[in-house]
Amino acid sequence: MLYSKLFGKTVKKAPSDATLISHKLLYQAGFIRESTAGRYFMLPLGQQVQLKIMQIIREEMDEAGAQEMLSPVLHPLTLWEETNRTKTTGFELMKIKDRREMWFALAGTAEEMFVDVVRKFRPSYKDLPFNIYQFSLKFRDELRARGGLLRVREFIMKDAYSFDRNEEQFKKEYQNMWQTYKRIFESMGLKTTVIESDNGYIGGEYCHEFVVESEIGESRYLTTAKQEYAAHEEVAKFSRDEKNLTEKLAPLKEVEAKRGTTMEDGVKLHKKPLWQQIKDVLFVDEKGRFILSIIRGDYDINEVKLKHLTNAISLRHATDEEIKNKIHSEPGFISPVGIRNIIDKNIKLILVADDSLRTIRNAYGGANKKFKDLFNMNIDRDYQPDLEGDIAMAQAGFLSLDKKQKLIEKRGIEVGNIFQLGYHYSKRMKDAVFVDQNGKLEPFYMGCYGIGIGRTLAAIVEKFHDDRGIIWPENVAPYKFHLLGFDLKDEKVKKVAYEIYNLLTKTHNLEVLFDDREETSAGEKFADADLIGIPYRLVVSKRTGDKIEVKKRNEKKIDLLTLEHIIKTSS
Amino acid sequence: MLYSKLFGKTVKKAPSDATLISHKLLYQAGFIRESTAGRYFMLPLGQQVQLKIMQIIREEMDEAGAQEMLSPVLHPLTLWEETNRTKTTGFELMKIKDRREMWFALAGTAEEMFVDVVRKFRPSYKDLPFNIYQFSLKFRDELRARGGLLRVREFIMKDAYSFDRNEEQFKKEYQNMWQTYKRIFESMGLKTTVIESDNGYIGGEYCHEFVVESEIGESRYLTTAKQEYAAHEEVAKFSRDEKNLTEKLAPLKEVEAKRGTTMEDGVKLHKKPLWQQIKDVLFVDEKGRFILSIIRGDYDINEVKLKHLTNAISLRHATDEEIKNKIHSEPGFISPVGIRNIIDKNIKLILVADDSLRTIRNAYGGANKKFKDLFNMNIDRDYQPDLEGDIAMAQAGFLSLDKKQKLIEKRGIEVGNIFQLGYHYSKRMKDAVFVDQNGKLEPFYMGCYGIGIGRTLAAIVEKFHDDRGIIWPENVAPYKFHLLGFDLKDEKVKKVAYEIYNLLTKTHNLEVLFDDREETSAGEKFADADLIGIPYRLVVSKRTGDKIEVKKRNEKKIDLLTLEHIIKTSS
Repeated sequence: MLYSKLFGKTVKKAPSDATLISHKLLYQAGFIRESTAGRYFMLPLGQQVQLKIMQIIREEMDEAGAQEMLSPVLHPLTLWEETNRTKTTGFELMKIKDRREMWFALAGTAEEMFVDVVRKFRPSYKDLPFNIYQFSLKFRDELRARGGLLRVREFIMKDAYSFDRNEEQFKKEYQNMWQTYKRIFESMGLKTTVIESDNGYIGGEYCHEFVVESEIGESRYLTTAKQEYAAHEEVAKFSRDEKNLTEKLAPLKEVEAKRGTTMEDGVKLHKKPLWQQIKDVLFVDEKGRFILSIIRGDYDINEVKLKHLTNAISLRHATDEEIKNKIHSEPGFISPVGIRNIIDKNIKLILVADDSLRTIRNAYGGANKKFKDLFNMNIDRDYQPDLEGDIAMAQAGFLSLDKKQKLIEKRGIEVGNIFQLGYHYSKRMKDAVFVDQNGKLEPFYMGCYGIGIGRTLAAIVEKFHDDRGIIWPENVAPYKFHLLGFDLKDEKVKKVAYEIYNLLTKTHNLEVLFDDREETSAGEKFADADLIGIPYRLVVSKRTGDKIEVKKRNEKKIDLLTLEHIIKTSS
Repeated sequence: MLYSKLFGKTVKKAPSDATLISHKLLYQAGFIRESTAGRYFMLPLGQQVQLKIMQIIREEMDEAGAQEMLSPVLHPLTLWEETNRTKTTGFELMKIKDRREMWFALAGTAEEMFVDVVRKFRPSYKDLPFNIYQFSLKFRDELRARGGLLRVREFIMKDAYSFDRNEEQFKKEYQNMWQTYKRIFESMGLKTTVIESDNGYIGGEYCHEFVVESEIGESRYLTTAKQEYAAHEEVAKFSRDEKNLTEKLAPLKEVEAKRGTTMEDGVKLHKKPLWQQIKDVLFVDEKGRFILSIIRGDYDINEVKLKHLTNAISLRHATDEEIKNKIHSEPGFISPVGIRNIIDKNIKLILVADDSLRTIRNAYGGANKKFKDLFNMNIDRDYQPDLEGDIAMAQAGFLSLDKKQKLIEKRGIEVGNIFQLGYHYSKRMKDAVFVDQNGKLEPFYMGCYGIGIGRTLAAIVEKFHDDRGIIWPENVAPYKFHLLGFDLKDEKVKKVAYEIYNLLTKTHNLEVLFDDREETSAGEKFADADLIGIPYRLVVSKRTGDKIEVKKRNEKKIDLLTLEHIIKTSS
């Protein structure tokens, strides 16, 4: 490719709103341009990288036995209704109506579509297992897009769906995909950590996220030093240390409490430890249920865990209004004790206690009245939760589940996910069955597996760059060689440079970007080459004679080599 | 690939509504399945073919100097408004609003998007020319989808856009793409005819359609025997033969005409030739203008030509009501003579005459009154058209423009298009300019170039099949070899069959579909192989010993060959 004719040349300045290094470099080097927020053009350089990433994934998926196909991106909305996902995905789903008044969902993920095409065949147990995948556009009506390719509203995803006879067969495929994903990312130079994560609106019982450790990553996760355990903050578990369980239960007592409404105000007033205070957070869910979540004062509520425990789809904080007029309590003074007796009769209230309330005794906190607190609140005796479980947010420094080490907090870029779906879709969708050995109809046991192509591309740039530009790993680089021609106004040099270019590309079928510009200075060409980040820089000039200056982008050393040598070491 | 694990096996019956052979065969052989009308799943076999077609196009486009990139498929609607295409595309355009109330068009074609990304760079004359393309989803809100992949609502299109300094530079690229398209289709075994065609809502001054001749094709075109001329019926030109131009002009005369309202009724009553009668067709356009189109009685109105001549976007026939109450004429008796004097004053009427009215004299036809006709109507003397031109539909048997031969009618499947756009987009869109040699800003001169992938795939099947199934050309076949294993319950045969499969695939990296089913009869396997249409059928059985039976799908001959021989002749 002649650089003079390449569409998408380098520019000096990054967009003023670009904060991420991958966003800045991909923009400046001419790989991407924004259409509207969160929707990107892949320019020719960017598309070359995207195609290479896709090809690596394709080969590994095929090698793992999966089969590529392609589904429409307009999904009949009736399918999403069949699994109730029109409700559970909320606002991120985009919908459209055609001229015949038929409604479609724009592909978010494609579980229903794949089940729909599979059920058209009514497979037998002999046809199973199989794993079918596609590279297909996905749409997310995100409220906020992030700069560059990390959180976008439209992107290519490799999404795969496995259909198995039973859990045992599925587990093999889950392991197979796990290993395949590890290989895929490693081959692009990305070391990934596999963390337990939340399945969001996908469904199923467990799933794992593949993250590339990075300070700018959106996935916060907790892990042990040797990563025996690693989990997204949304699901991370930890061990609650026991506090004062040897204390005797003291009688419940109401006390004056002229204090502010924060936890800190309670600590200051009563001069008791934070952990002994009960933290009460009142939510309202999408069905209008009031959910009073309570937890030890030194922990925070994890809303994702709370949603799972209560089967809520979305939660919002109750307003002061609601606390006063519907719950008849007082903001900052809510208490689980006696709350069921004071609320409006038409209100459904669910009291949810974190497991940590079993690690303390004689807790203090609000009394459902302004400026009144209760001392010596004890679970079972003074309040009885409707639900008890793990609704706490793990933090760095907390004890690991095995109590042997402290959790460490890290951030990472989510590049892939694997999900156990089990019967989540096959039991909700009609005829999602296969014929077993005895002629009986059985639902599929399923899994699904996604990789975001653009996000993987951005993660590579986040990992591989220096202050001058990108440093592409060889197998995803847009070109292998960046040939810089200097002194091209000298006819002799020009002839040599074009000969080298033609030999490399036409005779030896190697990928070369040739900076053939005649009016551009050597300094500018060097800077552009560093910015674009192609693995091997070749320089031909008056001074190089019949040799070529070769420099690897990630090394300082410059060699003067013959073309034969370069070609020989490249094939 | 083991056929036992392939997703998408053959089925005996085609869908009851399938009329096209490509639809039936692609369905039965397991290449496609319908999601909803006009939206198809490409099953693994189909996707392999689609990927191969795309790769052939990609290589030819790259070879021709074009650069692959990728644009979002949700286009900001403001861009389509900039070129007025929100109005000119009518109902085929799908629109969607995101949660921030921003409107998008679902990609129909992507001229605006490509201009938009190019103008972000403000290129200089040195950057031009370039041609950028993508493989990207396109959506058409068609009222009627056709069976199979021939007319669908969602499909992958290769769309390319060229940016040139001027017409001269553009014309080279137009030729370049023309030749590239010819090569692309030829390499897949498709002989294409290039016909002049209408640009629909794309705009520009001229364009050409690449069609594969086929009786089931939707493109009707007129051509000469040696194809010096070939044009879509919508734009086809012909020579109007002169009739009675030697006659003297006779005086205009109103006569009694107790007749029906058809042309035939006039011929019968007056015993004059059809060609001497004036055919009047009254349309109403999207702006409410009445357009009275008149033509020689033996010709028909071509609405596409009429739209272009009158700059109308859409036309509908006027109702009998409107003819009576607004035009104050009479259905079946409309006449151009004196019509301007009788219409409602607030009506805008445009009288458009076909060139054929200059080939006859003393025409007859309606008199704008029931049961009255006029004799001896003559253009200029008795009626004065607002517009005159070619608004006639060409038919088989009509004279070619050079008057040397008769036109032949053919039908074909449209697989590609190339369009001159000129300044159509660059003059409508702000800043769609480059900096010329003198530092002046000049609009781009543009062209665009499309190929429908699914339709090309279907056209290949329409061309290459017999009564037993598909016959894939080798370079687009899903696999090169279809290995059938018979007697697989015999351990010895089974071992040999798997060894051959592994040697071909793993050692020699050849593409093999291996029918490894043990319970399936030889007859069924033969039938499936013929249906699927893979170029080489290999049979291993008890009887083949250490050799392999080889048969090409499109030949009858069966050879007994060694594996070495097969491998040697395959690389």
